[in-house]
Amino acid sequence: MNKYDKLVKNAAGRMVPTVINGKPAIPYMGVGKYRPVGRKAAPFIATTADYPADGNKVAESLKDALIKCGLKDGMTISTHHHFRNGDLVANQIFDIAHDMGIKDLMWFPSASFPCHESMTKYLEDGTIHHIEGSMNGALGRFTSEGKMKGLGVLRSHGGRYQSVQDGEVHIDIAVIAAPTADPFGNCNGVNGTAACGLLGFALADSQYADRVIIVTDHLVPFPCIPWQIHGNYVDYVVVQDKIGIPEKIISGTTEITKSPDRLLLAEWTAQFCDEAGIIHDGFSFQAGAGGTALSIGIFFADILKKRGWKARFARGGSNKYLVNMLEEGLTDYILDGQTFDLEGVRSMRENPNHVNTSPFTSYNYHGKGNFATFVDTVILGATEVDVNFNANVVTHSDGYLLHGIGGWQNCLFSRCTILPIPLFRDRIPVIRDEVTTLCGPGELVDVIVTERGIAINPLRTDLIEKMKNSSLPIKTIAELKSEAEAICGVPEKPRFSDEVVAVVKWVDGTVLDSVYRVIN
Amino acid sequence: MNKYDKLVKNAAGRMVPTVINGKPAIPYMGVGKYRPVGRKAAPFIATTADYPADGNKVAESLKDALIKCGLKDGMTISTHHHFRNGDLVANQIFDIAHDMGIKDLMWFPSASFPCHESMTKYLEDGTIHHIEGSMNGALGRFTSEGKMKGLGVLRSHGGRYQSVQDGEVHIDIAVIAAPTADPFGNCNGVNGTAACGLLGFALADSQYADRVIIVTDHLVPFPCIPWQIHGNYVDYVVVQDKIGIPEKIISGTTEITKSPDRLLLAEWTAQFCDEAGIIHDGFSFQAGAGGTALSIGIFFADILKKRGWKARFARGGSNKYLVNMLEEGLTDYILDGQTFDLEGVRSMRENPNHVNTSPFTSYNYHGKGNFATFVDTVILGATEVDVNFNANVVTHSDGYLLHGIGGWQNCLFSRCTILPIPLFRDRIPVIRDEVTTLCGPGELVDVIVTERGIAINPLRTDLIEKMKNSSLPIKTIAELKSEAEAICGVPEKPRFSDEVVAVVKWVDGTVLDSVYRVIN
Repeated sequence: MNKYDKLVKNAAGRMVPTVINGKPAIPYMGVGKYRPVGRKAAPFIATTADYPADGNKVAESLKDALIKCGLKDGMTISTHHHFRNGDLVANQIFDIAHDMGIKDLMWFPSASFPCHESMTKYLEDGTIHHIEGSMNGALGRFTSEGKMKGLGVLRSHGGRYQSVQDGEVHIDIAVIAAPTADPFGNCNGVNGTAACGLLGFALADSQYADRVIIVTDHLVPFPCIPWQIHGNYVDYVVVQDKIGIPEKIISGTTEITKSPDRLLLAEWTAQFCDEAGIIHDGFSFQAGAGGTALSIGIFFADILKKRGWKARFARGGSNKYLVNMLEEGLTDYILDGQTFDLEGVRSMRENPNHVNTSPFTSYNYHGKGNFATFVDTVILGATEVDVNFNANVVTHSDGYLLHGIGGWQNCLFSRCTILPIPLFRDRIPVIRDEVTTLCGPGELVDVIVTERGIAINPLRTDLIEKMKNSSLPIKTIAELKSEAEAICGVPEKPRFSDEVVAVVKWVDGTVLDSVYRVIN
Repeated sequence: MNKYDKLVKNAAGRMVPTVINGKPAIPYMGVGKYRPVGRKAAPFIATTADYPADGNKVAESLKDALIKCGLKDGMTISTHHHFRNGDLVANQIFDIAHDMGIKDLMWFPSASFPCHESMTKYLEDGTIHHIEGSMNGALGRFTSEGKMKGLGVLRSHGGRYQSVQDGEVHIDIAVIAAPTADPFGNCNGVNGTAACGLLGFALADSQYADRVIIVTDHLVPFPCIPWQIHGNYVDYVVVQDKIGIPEKIISGTTEITKSPDRLLLAEWTAQFCDEAGIIHDGFSFQAGAGGTALSIGIFFADILKKRGWKARFARGGSNKYLVNMLEEGLTDYILDGQTFDLEGVRSMRENPNHVNTSPFTSYNYHGKGNFATFVDTVILGATEVDVNFNANVVTHSDGYLLHGIGGWQNCLFSRCTILPIPLFRDRIPVIRDEVTTLCGPGELVDVIVTERGIAINPLRTDLIEKMKNSSLPIKTIAELKSEAEAICGVPEKPRFSDEVVAVVKWVDGTVLDSVYRVIN
């Protein structure tokens, strides 16, 4: 099987394959242009007659459970990333598969982390054929060097749900690490030593996989409440001593930025939102967990407090700052996709207004709407943007795969998407003629905030009008690019072969761009 | 289209059709014997591009929403029964359909109530072709008299979920009355003047229907939390002045029995459970909302308190007595399928250990297990039982359809199913040679408690052994039958034609029995 077939030019002008790892793929057609046809994936019909009447699905070991689930060559195995860099479960699956001599698995994580670096040896020896998910760090380098047997497929969190729901990706076995579970398989992320808050990234896996294994180090008697994942989807439960490293699950160190440049970005972003009328009583926002984003959240909170307003909801990634806002009454709700610190976990456990969400509710483009489209403003990062406001988040300017997409693409649909980014990183300008890899179409990126000025997308005439008398340094993106190049010079382009090593999917499952093999 | 084809004898010895309303049906094969094949129903893939970016799905009126959903002849329209006899929404749908001249609809309620009596006129004039759901009161009489154009299909709550999940019933338009909703369609039953607690019976409808309409009289800004039904499944939201009559939604009058005979049944049932070792620290039970069942719950609570034990969970239908147990610490959780009084609603709203469940988690036989199979004891009613412990819950001894199945069939899978029933009603013995309609196979009915003695199913040699030295009046079911007949005489059988008017489905979708036209 070839990784891919011929390349065609898609609606964004990017060359993309139409067959990926042996399956047909549709080139990107424009925002909202592709119309899905057909019906969702249909899981097989199970019967209670096949499951223990006493509700006890505990298997002897993960290996035992994998064997009972029929682990064999060529299967797709999924994992979630709520344990982030503290995950002790995902690697075990492939260690077992390797010991059993299983080959050509597809690993379908919701994201990967440095702790998964050891997967490279299984990519090398053929245990894993390829990854569809984020390829960061060592896995990104491995992929960018053209060493992966199959083509990497990068999807947003919403796109991952969509791909499973729509049957693009069929999960044979889902392995869901759960901080607390009962013998029937109900489980959650709010209790237990490996508490990670919620398990929303595993929702699609539980619903659509043929077989579902829960791995826990904290077994409680039925019922495990809240049951974020329902045991009615689960085949086996595995109990282990330790499934995660708490201090690596919870970053704990996420603090607001102290860099004067970053603080300036945060302050200007908040001021922009205020002057443009984006902040209002009942508004909603999504910032994020980076130092700049955290600072922006704090500026937002200050503005709300000063005016006697409150947000209707804050979209998390939650952390102590967002929890503070909730507890101070500055927001009615946190709608949370992942908790970034222990305060986030505590708040989700205790506060019914700190709501656990999944990519189904928040991000899935192939639902009857999703709430990402009506968040008032979302603050995102980018590795590069170009003069047409297109943005990149998966490769650096050196061409190497570096990040996953996360919820980034899904968030672009907010009412005002703002990218506060430094004008240059390591003396390399961030604004380019063309992004190395296209992850977000420029028409969805509304504002770029840099330390030397703010560029508003010309499509947003409403924002331009509102800001025409602002004291903020509103400039064109071309001006910002020139300023950066005047300081740093015009950056060199990375050297690529014409071999595609991965593709970036759009939120609707179409192929937005290709990632090429880097030539050193 | 004929209502049905020829009848064949199923594994219970009952004659049942193999084609029902034009669709093939499988005769009952025995408990746990039918193995489902194939895959679940696959709803069409929606796209966010078709839904308002601001999340506002509010339609002008229910009629407007129904038209936008493409209401037309022959469609299947579903409703839920969480408003019980206070439902002001279901009738409106068919009033609108009638005004529009729509014909041959299939009404698929999760249950019907006296307030739905006016549907008979639409059954007569052809607006509604037939009902698949409970046919009580006037609708039961109408059906039993052979007047319905199609064949009635009676399903348990779990069977209703199963039928939708498995694609046996395809819902074209689901209309979900919701006490609180937001413009995106997220909704719940815990807030608002029509608060009914939860909306679990509408879960399958939201997940699998082509089109979903939420009708509310309490619209809140996004997000409506808890979102018991997700707006991501919803097409339109309709706002009306009043969607339910609170005092009829919440019975409010549910009180423990004062009848000495009923109290005796309750006391003996509790004593039986105690002596048989069914009650223990960490046990679980489901009683119900009738006067006898409530009294049993109170006896259970007393026993727990006396021993210093607590239940792990009580399965609701909840009411003030169960809420009391939760708040006194006599049970860790209430796993609730419907709230029967305002205390139940309050508790579900306030207490995270009062958990809203759906037929998916509790009852669906075609899941990877369901928790009904590991409830320690369940207390149920019956209109008749026979000498083989088979039981009837849908027709009375006069042959008329009177009740829906509710969760009754699903609950039979508990570890010990007990039917506390009077030995005779209106001088008609309840224990028969053969039940008029078979709803529950005798092998799943463990104990019959009457005011003149207790019969244990001979299959439960374990229980017989445990009770051999009991002071309770343990008798054979034949003895109980003889005693009743000695007092009341042998009851006459109702007169039936050979025309089938409805069928009773088993939890796995197979056909357990037929209901015949009554001859007056």
